[in-house]
This record gives sequence, C-alpha cells and structure tokens, in this order.
Amino acid sequence: MRNFKIIVQYEGTRYQGWQRQESTANTIQGKLEALLTKMCEAERKPAAVEVTGSGRTDAGVHSLGQTANFHLDTLKKPNDIMKYMNAYLPEDIAVVQIEEVDGRFHSRLLAREKTYCYRVMNSEVPHIFDRRYVYEYPGKLHVENMRKAAGYLCGTHDFKAFTSAKRGRKSTVRTLKELRIEEIGEEIRFTFTGDGFLYHMVRILAGTLLETGEGLRKPEEIPLLFESGRREDAGRLVPAKGLVLAEVRY
Amino acid sequence: MRNFKIIVQYEGTRYQGWQRQESTANTIQGKLEALLTKMCEAERKPAAVEVTGSGRTDAGVHSLGQTANFHLDTLKKPNDIMKYMNAYLPEDIAVVQIEEVDGRFHSRLLAREKTYCYRVMNSEVPHIFDRRYVYEYPGKLHVENMRKAAGYLCGTHDFKAFTSAKRGRKSTVRTLKELRIEEIGEEIRFTFTGDGFLYHMVRILAGTLLETGEGLRKPEEIPLLFESGRREDAGRLVPAKGLVLAEVRY
Repeated sequence: MRNFKIIVQYEGTRYQGWQRQESTANTIQGKLEALLTKMCEAERKPAAVEVTGSGRTDAGVHSLGQTANFHLDTLKKPNDIMKYMNAYLPEDIAVVQIEEVDGRFHSRLLAREKTYCYRVMNSEVPHIFDRRYVYEYPGKLHVENMRKAAGYLCGTHDFKAFTSAKRGRKSTVRTLKELRIEEIGEEIRFTFTGDGFLYHMVRILAGTLLETGEGLRKPEEIPLLFESGRREDAGRLVPAKGLVLAEVRY
Repeated sequence: MRNFKIIVQYEGTRYQGWQRQESTANTIQGKLEALLTKMCEAERKPAAVEVTGSGRTDAGVHSLGQTANFHLDTLKKPNDIMKYMNAYLPEDIAVVQIEEVDGRFHSRLLAREKTYCYRVMNSEVPHIFDRRYVYEYPGKLHVENMRKAAGYLCGTHDFKAFTSAKRGRKSTVRTLKELRIEEIGEEIRFTFTGDGFLYHMVRILAGTLLETGEGLRKPEEIPLLFESGRREDAGRLVPAKGLVLAEVRY
C-alpha cells in the first residue's frame, strides 16, 4: 500500500465540517473518501479508503492548508490522483498539493504545529466579496489592548477555560507559540500558531480578544482565566465563518 | 430635489446585469430603485426613484466601483440613506460610499474615465476561494507576447471589431489609455483604463490577448483588426465572471 499526503483547500460554508458522519454525506472527509473509494473501484482494486486529516475543522470553518493522508493500492502517479480528485470534487473543495510519502507518515499524529487565522471585518459598510470569510464587527475596537491580551495568552498554559469540550481525562495544556494581530485595511486579522488546539479553542480565544477590544475585559485579567479553568469566564464563541486553517507543519 | 452620488459594489453572479428590465426584477439597478422607492414611501413622499449608473454591466460581471446617482426628496442625511440601503440590500450588493452632489451631476454623462480588471487564473489546480471572480485557464501563456499585443491595443482606435453591438450610427472610436498586465502569483490580471468601452469590448480584448498568449495570434497582427473592423476577426468573448468594474473617474 502506498501512502499519499495531500493539502486540501475548502470553503466550509456548505459543509458539516471535516469529520465523516453516519448521519450525513456532507462532510469534507466523507466527500474525499467516497471519491477515492470510487477511484479504486474504477481501477478494479476495490477498497474502502480512509482519509486521515491533521485534525477536525468544525462546520463552516475554511481551509487553506488542511493536510491529510491516505493509503492506497494504485498504479497512478500522485499528480494523476490529484487531477482525478479535482475533476470530481465539488467546486468548493480542491486538492492543491500531493506527494507520495513514507508509509509511516500520519497527518494527525505527526503534526508538529498549526496556524489558524481569524478574520474580523471592522467596518460600517458591508464587504460583500469577503462576506463568507469574515466576521463583520462594526463596533469600535481598542487594538492595543487586544495586543496586550495576546501577550498574556501566548505561552504554555492550561487552556481548559477556552474549550467547549466536556471535561475528560485528556490534558488541556497547550502551547500558543505566537498570536499576531494585524490591521489590513479595515480588517483585523488574528493569526494563531501553536502545537495544537482544543475543540473551539481558536474561536473562544478570538472572542476573548474581541471582548478585550470592546472594553468588556482588561488585558491584565487574562491570567485569571487560566486559573479559573471555567468556560463561562472566557469570551464568547465567535462565528465559524471567520476562521481558516492556514497551515499544518510536520 | 437633492442629488446623491453612490459607489455600489456587487457580486454579479446571481444577477441579470446592471440594467433594469421589464422581464425580471433580478438586476442591480432594479433592486436599488425598488429599495429607494420604498424608502420614499416610508417617508410619506412617494416617488418612483430612478438610479442612473455610469454604464451597464453585463450579467455576471462584478463591481468594486460602479458609480450611480439619484434625485430624491428626503430629509435624511446621506449616511443614513446608505445605512438604510445596506440594511435592506441582498448580501451580494452594498453601497460603500455616498455623498450629496450638485444637482447637475450625472454619473453616466460626466464619467471621464473607467477602469476594468479581467482576472485569469493560470493554474493547474482549482483556486476555490476565487472561483466566482476569475476565468480559469490552465494552459501555457506567453506573457511577453500578450504585453506586446497590449502595446498595439493602447491608444485611440476604431474598436468596431471588438464589440458585439450591432452596427449603428454611433462612433466606435475609443481611447484605451492604459492596458496593464500583471502576474500575481498564478493569476494574470489585465487592467484596462479608457474613456469609455463598447458593449463586450473588455471581454473581447481579454479574449484577443489570451489568444495571443496561447500562440494563436501574433502581436503584430493586432493593427489589422482595427482596419478590418469585423467582429469575427477579433478574439473570443471570455466569461463574464472574470470581469470587474474597478473604478469610475469624473
């Protein structure tokens, strides 16, 4: 069995997220697996192909750099597999890179670092061309206070207050290596780089930053959230459409 | 009656173009007029508002800078009119600028210069986030030859061969002041600036440039098209979705 690593881009708007579900065919992983399974049948080597992603993305979240891998018994060249996939994938999903990798490569277990962007459109007028990719927040934002809060968020912490996941035995300690805040025209872009992110973590971090910018929180109060560990003490969950998985590094 | 000048952005995908039509409500002009007429009724000053655009855009063409004006008997401040409009316009149309102007201002008759962009995505992989705004052409293109052809196209010429309009008494002489060709990543962007453009002219110019890039035409043959004046001698009409009206100057 050969092992292929792909980079998949998608607009999340129409999908129930990355992860395959019994109840719906409308997931990215589900679409990719169905397609590759069909490709194997066409090659007369029927197999239920499993596609492993670097992690799940929620319903509505977009991807520029989601990385996945799958094992396949095929005679096709990597580039021909990519072409086959792009010919049959819906117009809002595309494979933009493919390579054959060592059999032991695993896109989730070996992911070393991920980068997510959250885009806020801080404008009084609608930005129609970006409407599916940004969270429109027209109110006044204090960017310097958000940058201060970002400083407190960086580092290795217990991010228990920043996840919607039910309390389990798994560690909620993560390292947020960088949190950049850029002003690009009327857009305010948060870029998060870390060794891993908990369920909803990026969107709750973005909500907490926004509440700081709105003046509802003080940057100095951020460390208290690590102590409390209570979801209700952290900021609101902001909409999925502003979020994009930008890159996964190995 | 007060006179208001607006800049309107729209994604043309869902519309039958700018111009109001009897047969469909699905035009940009139609949407704007219906909305402003309703606004006047709400103010108890019923009037059938007419919105004049700088020119028509065809079905599927987008706008970043379409400029229009309308006369209105209202007590509202310009900014409140814009807010009212954006609150009720569909998500793919927005007014991004408004100002009250002299009663004699006319967005079509006084337009001095227009800039259109035509975006070609010259890539073997789909660019899903730009799919509504670019013409995907994966073949090889000879950019230097397109630049040479652009040089021949610039200037004051009879562009009769570059329009789908039926032959009439109106002049088909126009001045193409600038035709820039930029390579932005895998995108090739044509930017046309001129004193006015005939029906389909930008898309036929773009098609002629592409055919030069494909090797089907020689740059030196461009001047012959001005002599022939025959539509069938010029290049193909490329799809509307790659075209955007970028700016109108007065």
